[in-house]
Amino acid sequence: MKATARANANIALVKYWGKRDDELILPMNGSISVTLSGLNTVTTVEFNEKLRNDVFVLNGVEQKGDERKKLGNHLDLVREKAKIKWNARVESKNNFPTAAGLASSASGFAALSVAAAKAAHLELNEKELSILARMGSGSASRSIHGGFVEWQKGTKKDGSDSYAEQIAKPGHWENFRILTTIVSGKEKKVKSRAGMKQTVQTSPMYKGWLETVENDLENVRAGILKKNFSLVGETAEMNALKMHSTMLTTRPAIIYWEPETIEIMHAVQELREEGTECYFTIDAGPQVKVLCLQKNEAIVTARLGEITGLQKIVPCKVGGKAETISEHFF
Amino acid sequence: MKATARANANIALVKYWGKRDDELILPMNGSISVTLSGLNTVTTVEFNEKLRNDVFVLNGVEQKGDERKKLGNHLDLVREKAKIKWNARVESKNNFPTAAGLASSASGFAALSVAAAKAAHLELNEKELSILARMGSGSASRSIHGGFVEWQKGTKKDGSDSYAEQIAKPGHWENFRILTTIVSGKEKKVKSRAGMKQTVQTSPMYKGWLETVENDLENVRAGILKKNFSLVGETAEMNALKMHSTMLTTRPAIIYWEPETIEIMHAVQELREEGTECYFTIDAGPQVKVLCLQKNEAIVTARLGEITGLQKIVPCKVGGKAETISEHFF
Repeated sequence: MKATARANANIALVKYWGKRDDELILPMNGSISVTLSGLNTVTTVEFNEKLRNDVFVLNGVEQKGDERKKLGNHLDLVREKAKIKWNARVESKNNFPTAAGLASSASGFAALSVAAAKAAHLELNEKELSILARMGSGSASRSIHGGFVEWQKGTKKDGSDSYAEQIAKPGHWENFRILTTIVSGKEKKVKSRAGMKQTVQTSPMYKGWLETVENDLENVRAGILKKNFSLVGETAEMNALKMHSTMLTTRPAIIYWEPETIEIMHAVQELREEGTECYFTIDAGPQVKVLCLQKNEAIVTARLGEITGLQKIVPCKVGGKAETISEHFF
Repeated sequence: MKATARANANIALVKYWGKRDDELILPMNGSISVTLSGLNTVTTVEFNEKLRNDVFVLNGVEQKGDERKKLGNHLDLVREKAKIKWNARVESKNNFPTAAGLASSASGFAALSVAAAKAAHLELNEKELSILARMGSGSASRSIHGGFVEWQKGTKKDGSDSYAEQIAKPGHWENFRILTTIVSGKEKKVKSRAGMKQTVQTSPMYKGWLETVENDLENVRAGILKKNFSLVGETAEMNALKMHSTMLTTRPAIIYWEPETIEIMHAVQELREEGTECYFTIDAGPQVKVLCLQKNEAIVTARLGEITGLQKIVPCKVGGKAETISEHFF
């Protein structure tokens, strides 16, 4: 009753922002992401008759309180399906900062879902895994797949049609690059979950977000299939700015950006003015991901490297799907 | 046929953003500002039979091209009213950086309007001066007055009901402070005029702006009259964020903020968390103005002083109206 899985983080090109159902985690809008090679979570799950309660160790630190409760709730979904009652020991490691806007919950719940299902001897297909991951964290539904991925918002009340599917395999666009910059390893003050709830309830700009997101989905989907980098990049950058404009106008305002966030945004605009095509996108946090093609990776990396507050640049290719691995943490 | 006037800059608490008539400069929405003591433009105008064309010296540099053309167009309005044909020599100085988001066009066109009207022996009342200044630059309509000022958007096509009026005199709120920070003296890439036009045409968030601005006007007006600092400050800060959220989502995006802009925004939020009440507001540029009461001026100034990229902090009280002075530049 033990299994380990690895799942990659993903970065949304069209963002998931706002829920229509908090319990089932059903989104207000569809979203499209690219799975990131190299930024991952590895999670071992063991169901064990002898455990008095669930144990959760994240990055070497035992978690209590809310974090353990969230984990327990997610394991309950698996236990229910598998008809088991045993508690579990879960150990999980991210190879990047947790909760700083680098989609740790996406890779985290994807890895947890795959490992827990396997440990419980559940035979789930990718659709079922995506739905399971979604119920832990919305964007985790996308990290089940590799390549370019679309999460359908669905229309049903029970969420059975709200899951992610692959638009294109990792190999479809070999020279697509995502440069993940890390400007701050601090945990963000307002978590995505609270931020999006507050936005839907209080931002006067949220309506403008919803009205334009379908068009963004069409553009990015078409751009991916045609490998039209300008279309994907321009749409993704504007989509991120629209999401942040809804955050900035919630009550109270959520200002996820740090000074370096702005510096990178300006650097990207300047690179474009100089003829080097690249675009930025930013999730609910200060970290900027810069999209470019392989031919421009060196010049973009060099320019970003000049920014002093920037701690790290992690170059990612399009990554693969979540899968079980044979080495366990314990 | 010579006169000199001095006018103060103003900072909008509810912003003017978007025109319904580009020619007459009629706004999409009303706005409220506070006139800033100490940040001013002084302008001398002389109409002179012997001049072959208008001459415009700004901060010691003779202006040609667009700047002189804008000045000439504005002087034409005065010449038409006064029935004179003479060209003018105009010399103007700002005691703060030009066109970096510090309302140089507001104080500039207010001073020019007052000086030119006087030099042309026109007897204009404050309403007429406000309309004249508005036709040079919208926000200049407010710099005609001292204290707290509201510019009515008006409804008439000819703009005759779109002018600014005083809500409260400078003496009404003695302990109100505006700390103007200067983070960059660079001229901004996108001038307000172009920025607002682009916003109205392309931002999906502009509708959200217009839908909520009337409520902001009511709150700020009421807050000023009752000297309710929290109401004025909270509304002004959110109003600025709403305006910037429309800028960030125009095509192409206008990112007026600099890294220090974000640092100051965070500092203001942190000061509030620590119990020191203050609020930020930002015009179309990187400069942040921090609103506080006199009792907190020292602590806010000290905190802002810790920010390294910050070039200068100019503390302003509520300033007086535009008026003629007896010393001329030439």
